[in-house]
Amino acid sequence: MSDFNQPISGNDLARFSGPDTFMRLPPANALDGLDVAVLGVPMDIGTSWRSGARFGPKQIRAESAMIRPYNMATGAAPFDALQVADIGDLAINTFSLSDSIRIISDSYDAILTNDVIPLAMGGDHSITLPILRAIARKHGPVALVHVDAHADVNDEMFGEKETHGTVFRRAYEEGLILPDKTYQIGIRGTGYGADDFSEAQGWGFQQFPAHELWNSSLARMGAEIRRDIGDRPTYVSYDIDSLDPAFAPGTGTPEIGGLTTPQALDLIRALKGANIVGCDLVEVSPPYDPSGNTALTGANLLYELLCVLPGVGQR
Amino acid sequence: MSDFNQPISGNDLARFSGPDTFMRLPPANALDGLDVAVLGVPMDIGTSWRSGARFGPKQIRAESAMIRPYNMATGAAPFDALQVADIGDLAINTFSLSDSIRIISDSYDAILTNDVIPLAMGGDHSITLPILRAIARKHGPVALVHVDAHADVNDEMFGEKETHGTVFRRAYEEGLILPDKTYQIGIRGTGYGADDFSEAQGWGFQQFPAHELWNSSLARMGAEIRRDIGDRPTYVSYDIDSLDPAFAPGTGTPEIGGLTTPQALDLIRALKGANIVGCDLVEVSPPYDPSGNTALTGANLLYELLCVLPGVGQR
Amino acid sequence: MSDFNQPISGNDLARFSGPDTFMRLPPANALDGLDVAVLGVPMDIGTSWRSGARFGPKQIRAESAMIRPYNMATGAAPFDALQVADIGDLAINTFSLSDSIRIISDSYDAILTNDVIPLAMGGDHSITLPILRAIARKHGPVALVHVDAHADVNDEMFGEKETHGTVFRRAYEEGLILPDKTYQIGIRGTGYGADDFSEAQGWGFQQFPAHELWNSSLARMGAEIRRDIGDRPTYVSYDIDSLDPAFAPGTGTPEIGGLTTPQALDLIRALKGANIVGCDLVEVSPPYDPSGNTALTGANLLYELLCVLPGVGQR
Amino acid sequence: MSDFNQPISGNDLARFSGPDTFMRLPPANALDGLDVAVLGVPMDIGTSWRSGARFGPKQIRAESAMIRPYNMATGAAPFDALQVADIGDLAINTFSLSDSIRIISDSYDAILTNDVIPLAMGGDHSITLPILRAIARKHGPVALVHVDAHADVNDEMFGEKETHGTVFRRAYEEGLILPDKTYQIGIRGTGYGADDFSEAQGWGFQQFPAHELWNSSLARMGAEIRRDIGDRPTYVSYDIDSLDPAFAPGTGTPEIGGLTTPQALDLIRALKGANIVGCDLVEVSPPYDPSGNTALTGANLLYELLCVLPGVGQR
Amino acid sequence: MSDFNQPISGNDLARFSGPDTFMRLPPANALDGLDVAVLGVPMDIGTSWRSGARFGPKQIRAESAMIRPYNMATGAAPFDALQVADIGDLAINTFSLSDSIRIISDSYDAILTNDVIPLAMGGDHSITLPILRAIARKHGPVALVHVDAHADVNDEMFGEKETHGTVFRRAYEEGLILPDKTYQIGIRGTGYGADDFSEAQGWGFQQFPAHELWNSSLARMGAEIRRDIGDRPTYVSYDIDSLDPAFAPGTGTPEIGGLTTPQALDLIRALKGANIVGCDLVEVSPPYDPSGNTALTGANLLYELLCVLPGVGQR
Amino acid sequence: MSDFNQPISGNDLARFSGPDTFMRLPPANALDGLDVAVLGVPMDIGTSWRSGARFGPKQIRAESAMIRPYNMATGAAPFDALQVADIGDLAINTFSLSDSIRIISDSYDAILTNDVIPLAMGGDHSITLPILRAIARKHGPVALVHVDAHADVNDEMFGEKETHGTVFRRAYEEGLILPDKTYQIGIRGTGYGADDFSEAQGWGFQQFPAHELWNSSLARMGAEIRRDIGDRPTYVSYDIDSLDPAFAPGTGTPEIGGLTTPQALDLIRALKGANIVGCDLVEVSPPYDPSGNTALTGANLLYELLCVLPGVGQR
Ligand SMILES: [Mn+2]
Ligand SMILES: [Mn+2]
Ligand SMILES: [Mn+2]
Ligand SMILES: [Mn+2]
Ligand SMILES: [Mn+2]
Ligand SMILES: [Mn+2]
Ligand SMILES: [Mn+2]
Ligand SMILES: [Mn+2]
Ligand SMILES: [Mn+2]
Ligand SMILES: [Mn+2]
Ligand SMILES: [Mn+2]
Ligand SMILES: [Mn+2]
Repeated sequence: MSDFNQPISGNDLARFSGPDTFMRLPPANALDGLDVAVLGVPMDIGTSWRSGARFGPKQIRAESAMIRPYNMATGAAPFDALQVADIGDLAINTFSLSDSIRIISDSYDAILTNDVIPLAMGGDHSITLPILRAIARKHGPVALVHVDAHADVNDEMFGEKETHGTVFRRAYEEGLILPDKTYQIGIRGTGYGADDFSEAQGWGFQQFPAHELWNSSLARMGAEIRRDIGDRPTYVSYDIDSLDPAFAPGTGTPEIGGLTTPQALDLIRALKGANIVGCDLVEVSPPYDPSGNTALTGANLLYELLCVLPGVGQR
Repeated sequence: MSDFNQPISGNDLARFSGPDTFMRLPPANALDGLDVAVLGVPMDIGTSWRSGARFGPKQIRAESAMIRPYNMATGAAPFDALQVADIGDLAINTFSLSDSIRIISDSYDAILTNDVIPLAMGGDHSITLPILRAIARKHGPVALVHVDAHADVNDEMFGEKETHGTVFRRAYEEGLILPDKTYQIGIRGTGYGADDFSEAQGWGFQQFPAHELWNSSLARMGAEIRRDIGDRPTYVSYDIDSLDPAFAPGTGTPEIGGLTTPQALDLIRALKGANIVGCDLVEVSPPYDPSGNTALTGANLLYELLCVLPGVGQR
Repeated sequence: MSDFNQPISGNDLARFSGPDTFMRLPPANALDGLDVAVLGVPMDIGTSWRSGARFGPKQIRAESAMIRPYNMATGAAPFDALQVADIGDLAINTFSLSDSIRIISDSYDAILTNDVIPLAMGGDHSITLPILRAIARKHGPVALVHVDAHADVNDEMFGEKETHGTVFRRAYEEGLILPDKTYQIGIRGTGYGADDFSEAQGWGFQQFPAHELWNSSLARMGAEIRRDIGDRPTYVSYDIDSLDPAFAPGTGTPEIGGLTTPQALDLIRALKGANIVGCDLVEVSPPYDPSGNTALTGANLLYELLCVLPGVGQR
Repeated sequence: MSDFNQPISGNDLARFSGPDTFMRLPPANALDGLDVAVLGVPMDIGTSWRSGARFGPKQIRAESAMIRPYNMATGAAPFDALQVADIGDLAINTFSLSDSIRIISDSYDAILTNDVIPLAMGGDHSITLPILRAIARKHGPVALVHVDAHADVNDEMFGEKETHGTVFRRAYEEGLILPDKTYQIGIRGTGYGADDFSEAQGWGFQQFPAHELWNSSLARMGAEIRRDIGDRPTYVSYDIDSLDPAFAPGTGTPEIGGLTTPQALDLIRALKGANIVGCDLVEVSPPYDPSGNTALTGANLLYELLCVLPGVGQR
Repeated sequence: MSDFNQPISGNDLARFSGPDTFMRLPPANALDGLDVAVLGVPMDIGTSWRSGARFGPKQIRAESAMIRPYNMATGAAPFDALQVADIGDLAINTFSLSDSIRIISDSYDAILTNDVIPLAMGGDHSITLPILRAIARKHGPVALVHVDAHADVNDEMFGEKETHGTVFRRAYEEGLILPDKTYQIGIRGTGYGADDFSEAQGWGFQQFPAHELWNSSLARMGAEIRRDIGDRPTYVSYDIDSLDPAFAPGTGTPEIGGLTTPQALDLIRALKGANIVGCDLVEVSPPYDPSGNTALTGANLLYELLCVLPGVGQR
Repeated sequence: MSDFNQPISGNDLARFSGPDTFMRLPPANALDGLDVAVLGVPMDIGTSWRSGARFGPKQIRAESAMIRPYNMATGAAPFDALQVADIGDLAINTFSLSDSIRIISDSYDAILTNDVIPLAMGGDHSITLPILRAIARKHGPVALVHVDAHADVNDEMFGEKETHGTVFRRAYEEGLILPDKTYQIGIRGTGYGADDFSEAQGWGFQQFPAHELWNSSLARMGAEIRRDIGDRPTYVSYDIDSLDPAFAPGTGTPEIGGLTTPQALDLIRALKGANIVGCDLVEVSPPYDPSGNTALTGANLLYELLCVLPGVGQR
C-alpha cells in the first residue's frame, strides 16, 4: 500500500500481541529517513503530588495497539505521507531531576540534527523544558500550544527552578517561546493569588481558562488560535490533566471541572495546517489508571497530533 | 398492585440480598405467559481486544438491584403492563465461537415460538448475529437501531466471518435487516479507510458519527429515527462502548470521544412507540469495571429499553 | 500575610506530607474565634446499598491537600476573611444509627453555641437530619439547597424513620426547613411512582430534575435560586451522587444521567451572597473510589462552598 | 446419579452462567426434606473498621461456581448423602443492628423447626450471636469451634452489648455454649491487656493463639479438639480473618500473622465425625477483595464444612 | 563480558524503559544461532472460568524487567552459556480455538527445525497440547513435569476435545508423553469423583497432590523426580495456578491450598541436569492481577527454568 | 491509667475517625520529654522501579488505627513505659534526592539532640543513609539489623552514589555501622554476579539469604543475632520487601520467595533486650497496595519494633 512504515493491522496480528511500540509501528534505532520520531521520556521525579508517570510511555504504547491508521472523523491518513517510527525511550537518570533534564536536552539536540518531528510520551511535565531548549536551538523561539489544568509558571518549588510546575516561566525567561503566541488552554482550579495566571498574561501569554470553555466545542477557539499562529514553528505540549478527571483519572495532579475528550479532539483537529515542529503528551500516571483508559486517551491524542502534522493528507 | 411480576422492592428486602435476577424479578423456566424475557448470553470469545464480557450478565444483574420499577423522568411503568421475567443464561459453548453462534440462534428460535420480546444481556457483540437470524425468521427483516462506537461491518477477521466486528455486514448480506432502516449511532475512532464506514452507507445504512453529536441532546435525532422507522418491527442493539469511556470504562474495545449517558437516555426514550421486537445490551466487561458502574449503566439502559416496549404506559 | 489560619502551602511542605486536616489547615480543639468549623461525620450505617462512607472524611481530607487557598475562577479568597479550622470527627456510635443521630444533633448544638458555620464531611446522608435539627434550633427553619440524585423523602425504610432516604420528609414534618425555599437539584432515576417526587412538590419543594438540566450551565438556575432565597438563613446539603457516576464513581447509590462538575461549580458559585449557615458534603464512599477522584471532587466542592460563605471577598 | 440435589456441572453449563446460588445448587423456598440449608445473612452494621460484608453472600455465591461436588483430598461426596439447597438471604433491617439480631434469631427458630443444618454466609460476625441463641433453643448449649483472629469477647463497644466484637462473651453469659468445649483458634494481634484473652480462659475457653500454630499443620490439633468434643452438638463459627491477610485480604479487620489455607483445611477436615449442628463463615468484605479470592476461599471453607457434616461418606 | 545476548542492565537503562521483551533481551526475528527462544502465545479462548490470559505475555514481559542475569541462590548464569532471545508472539486466531491450536503446532514445527529450546509465555493451558505435538514430532515422547492445581485430563468439555482442561489426556492418547515419566505436582481441589485423578495414575502418571506437600520443601521430591527422569527429553509445563492464590492471585481458575513460591523455586532448581527440551508458563491473567505480582512470579519462574536448561553453568 | 501518651482506644472513638497519627497517638511538635518519636519521611525519588512510597507514611498511619496498645503474643506494653508521640513528616525536597538526603540528616541531628529513639516511616530505602549518618554522629558506629530482599550495596546507579540501592555500601565506607555486627536478612533474587552479595561478606556483613530460611521460624536465628549484638547500640532498618509479595504486595521492587509475616514477627520479637537506638520501616508503596494490607503490615512491624525497645516491659 505504501512505502512508509505502517502499524501492524489488528486483522493481521491480534491486538494483544506484537511489539510494544507506539501503534505497533516498527522500532527504529536510526533517525535518518524518519519524518516523525515517537519516543518515551519515562520520568516522574519532577512531579509534586502523585508519582507514577515513569510508567507512562509503557502504558501509552500498550493501549495504542487499539488505534488503526486512518482517522474516520477527519480522513487524515498520516502513514500515507510520513515515515514514522518509535525510537524507544530516553535514558534518563531516575535519581536526578537536574541530570535528567540535561540528558533530555542533549538527546533532543541529537534527534533534531535530523529533520524529524519528535512526539514525546511523558513522563511528568518537567520534560518539556529541556525539550523546548533543544527545539529553540533548532527552530528559534516557537509558538506554543499548551493544554493543561495548570499554567506551570511557578518561579520555584522547594527552591528548585526546574520542576513540572515551573516549565513555562523558564521557557519564557530563556526566550524559548514566543510569549504572545503562547496559548494556555484549560487552566483552572486553585492557586495562591490572581497573579498565578495573570502575570503570564503580562508576558503576552493568551490564556483560556476551563470555566470559559465549559459546555461548548473548542473548534472555533482552535481555529482562532490556528489563524493567530500563522506559519510560525509551533510546539504542542499536551498535559493530560487538562482533561477532566472523568475523562483522564490516571494523572498526577488532577483538577475537577476540566475539558472533555470531544473538546480535546476538536482543539487538536483545528490545528491542521500549523507548522508543528514537535509535540508531547505528559502526566499519564498508570498506577492511578487501572483501566488503562487514561493511557488510551493519551495514545489517541498523540495519534490526533500525528494527523495534523505538516504533510499529512486526507483520503 | 398488579397481576404482573414485580421486582422485589428495596424497601422489602435489602438491595444487596435476594435473587440475582435482572432487577430481582422472578426467575422463569417456562416462557408461556411472558411478554418479555430477559436473558444472559455470557460469552467473550468473539472479542478482539480485552476479554471479560462473559461475566457481563452476572454483573449487570447484580447492579440492576438498584433499579426501581417506575421511570421518574418519563412516567413509564413497564411492570404495570408487561409480564417480565428473567429466564437465565443460554448454555453457550465457551470453547467454540461458531458452535455458540449456532446455539444462540437455536435458543432464540425456541424463545420466539412464544410471542415474547427477548432482552439479551451480553456477552460480546458477536451474539447479535445469531439473534438477528432468529428474529428475521420470526419477523422478517427488521429495522435496526445500532448504537456503537464501531460499525461492526468488517468482512472477516483472521479469516473468520462471524465475530464481534462483522455482525452487521453478515446481517446485511443475509437479509436479516432493512438496510435503509438501519441506524448506526455513535460510530467513531480510527479505521483502515473511509470505506470502513461509507461502504455500509452504500447499502443504505444511516450513520450518525459521534463527532456530529457532541455537546447536544439526541432527543431530536431519536425522534427523526423514530418517525423514519414507522411501524416496522425493530431491533435495538446497544453496544455499551457507544458511550464515552468516562461513562462506560468497563468494556472491551473502548474509543474516546463517545456519547454521554444523557444522550443515551434521550435516544432510547425517543424510540417510544416503535414496534420493538427485541433488544440487546452488549460488551460490558466486568474485569475492567471494578466500580460496577458500567454494568449499572448497562442495567439502566436495558431498563429504559423495557420502558419503551410496545404496550408500556405511563402513570 | 494574614491573621487567619492558612492552609500549609504546597511550596512549603510536600503535599503528600503534613497533617491530614482539611486542606492542611490547623486542627482546632476549641471553637472560640472560629468563623468556620470543618468537621467529619464518619458514618455509613444509614445507607441502603454500598457501604463505605465511614471512610469519607479520611479520604476527603487526604485529597484536599491538593487545594490551594485562592479560587482562580472566581477570585474568592476565603482565608483572607474567615478563621477556618478542622475540628476533627464527631464520635458517632458505629453500631447504632439512632444513637448516632442523637450524638450528631447534640454535638451540633454544642458547636452552634459558638457563631460558627459548620462544614460537614460525611458519612452517608442520614447525618443531615440531626444537623438540620440543631441548625433549626439555632436559626429557625432554613432555606435548603439540596443537590442530590435522590429526593430522600421516603416515609420509612424497613420500618425506620431516620435513614439516608427519609431525611427531607422528616425535616419537612419537623419544620426544620422552609418548604417553599427548598430546592432539590439533580434528582432522577427510578422510583415507585410519580408521587416519589411530586408529593414533595405539594409541600412546596422546588425540584429540578437532572434531565431538565442536561447539556447546559447551571449558572442561570443557580442565580434564580439565589434570588428566590433572599437573605434567609440557608443550608446547603450536597450529596455527591448528584454528580454523574463518570464524575463521582465512588458513592453508595449511584444513578446514571447526573450532573457534571462544571454544573456543580456553576451552581455553587451562583450562591454567592446567600446567608449560608451550614453545609455538608455526603456519600463519598472510598472503597468504591480507588483513584481518590471522588473524594477530590468532594473536597473541591466543600472548598467552593467555603468560597461563597458570607464575608468572603475577592482578590 | 443421585436423588439428592446436585450442583450444576461446569461441563453442562459454563461456570460464569446459571443461578447465583451456592455452588449453583437449586434454590429452595421450603425447608422440608432438606438436610442442609445454605443461606445468606447480608449485614455489615455490626463491624467496627471496614464495612462491606453486606455483599459477602453475593460474592461467596458467585465464586462458589468454581467448586465441584467431590473432594479430591478427602474423598468426601456430600451430595451423595445430603439434600442441600440454597434458601436465599435473611431479610435483615440494614438500618438497625438490634432489630437485625432479632430477625436473625427468629428466622433461625423457623429454620430449625425443621431438622436442617444451617450453613450461613455472613455478613459480619455479629450474626453469630442470634444464630447461637436459636441453636441453643433447639440443641441446648453447644460445643463451639471458633476460628478467628479475634476472641470477640468484649463486654461492650460504644456502650453496645451486641456487636461483632462481643459475640462470645454474650454466648457465654447466656449459656448458649459449653465453655470448656469452646475452642478459639487463630487469635492474635493486639489488645488492651492480657485479660482480653485470659478472662475467657477463666470461663473454660480453650485458646490456640496463632503464633503457637505457625509453620505447622493443624491436623493434630484438630484431631485433639475432635476427640475432646465427643458427640456433643457442635457449632462451627469461621471468621475469615483467622486466615492471614495474604490468604484472605478482603475482610473487615485484618490481622497479620494468621493461619494459612492449608492449616484451615487440615483443621476442618479433622472435625469429621463431630455432631455439627450448624456453621457460619463470616467477615468476607467484597469491596476489599477485588480479585474475589477471599470469597473463593470462604466458599471453599463452607464446602469443606459441608464435607464433614454428619452423614457424609467417602467415595 | 560475553558473546551472548545480555538483558539490558537496570544500571544502564531505567527498568521502566527500554524494549518490552522478556528481561529486556534483544528481540529476534530469525532463529538461527539461538539456543533458547522465548515467545508469547497470547490466547485465552481455551479457558473455562475467568478469561484474560491473552494479556499474559505482555504483562510477564513488563514485569520481567526486574530480573537481573545472575541467580543469587544457585549461582546459575544462563546468559554466560546460552544465546537467548525473545522472538515475539505467535499469530493466533483469537476467534477460533481449533485454528489457534493448529497455528501453534505449525509454528512450533518451524521453531523446532532449529535446535532451539522454546520457552513459551501463555496464554491459557490449551496452548500446551499443540506444543507437545510439535515437541513429540521433534523429540519423540517426552518426560513431562506438569505443575498445576488441575490434572487437565478431562475427556471433553462442552463436547470439545481440545481445551485447557483436556490437554494431558490428549497428550497421553496421542503418545506425546511418556506416561510413567509424567509428574503432576500440586493438584488439588474438587472434582466429580476419585477417577478425576486416579484414572491418570492408571496410565502411569505420578501424581503429587498439594495437600501431601504442605509445609515442606519440594527439594527432595524434585530430586527424586530428577533422578527418575534420567536423561530423557523432558518438557516442563508450569501452570501458575499450581501456586496458592496468595502467591498468584491473577489466574483464571484459582484453587486454594496451593504451593508456595519457595516450593516452586525448590522444585525447579531440583531439575538441574535434566534434558529439558521446552517449557511453558501458562494461565497468568493480568485483569485479575492489578499489582502485576502474578506476572512477576511467572517471569521469575521462567527465569528459573532458564537457569536449569542444559548447558547453563554456575559462576 | 498511665502518665504516658496513649493511643486513642477503638472503644472510645471509632477507628475510622480521629487523628491520622501513628496509632492515633497525640501529635507532638516538641521533642522534649519524648522517649520515642515516630515520624514520616515521605519520599520516593530514590527508587529504581515502581514509585509511590512518598505516600507510605500517610497510609501506614491510616492503617495503624487498627493497632491496640498491648501485644497479646508477647505481653509487651510499650505505652506503660515510654512516652511516644508522632512528630509528623520531615520536609523533604521532592525534586532533589541529594537535597532531601541532606535535609533528613540535618533533621535527625536535631531530633537526636534529644534522647529520643526515632522510628521512621518511609519512603524509599534511600532515607536510611542520612539517618545512619546522624545516628552515627550521636552513637558512633552501630550494629545494624537490615531486613530486606536486597543487600543495597551497589556502588552507584546511573552514576549516583546515594540511592535506595547503595545505602549500606556507603554506610560501610563511611564507618556508620559495625560491619561484623551487620546482619542482612531475607536477601534473595537475581543480581549481576556472586559479588553482589559476597563482597559485603568480605567487609564482615553476616548474610541470611531467604532461601536458607524458608519453611522455618526465625526465632532461633533472631536469638543468635540478639546474642551476637550484645549491648551495642543497634539500628533496625526494615525494608518491607523482605516479605514475600504474598504478604506485602505493595512495594516498589518486589522479589518472590521472601519471608512470611510470622517469620518477621519472630525475628523482631527475638531482638528484645537489644540496645535499639532507632528503626525504620521503608518501601511501602500505597499505589500498589489497594487493600492497604501492606501498610497495615508495615504499621504492625513498627509496633512490634516499639515493643522491643529498651525499657518496655510486659504485663
Ligand atoms: Mn503541566
Ligand atoms: Mn497539569
Ligand atoms: Mn459492537
Ligand atoms: Mn463497539
Ligand atoms: Mn441523599
Ligand atoms: Mn443520593
Ligand atoms: Mn470475629
Ligand atoms: Mn475476626
Ligand atoms: Mn492447567
Ligand atoms: Mn490449572
Ligand atoms: Mn532496601
Ligand atoms: Mn528491598
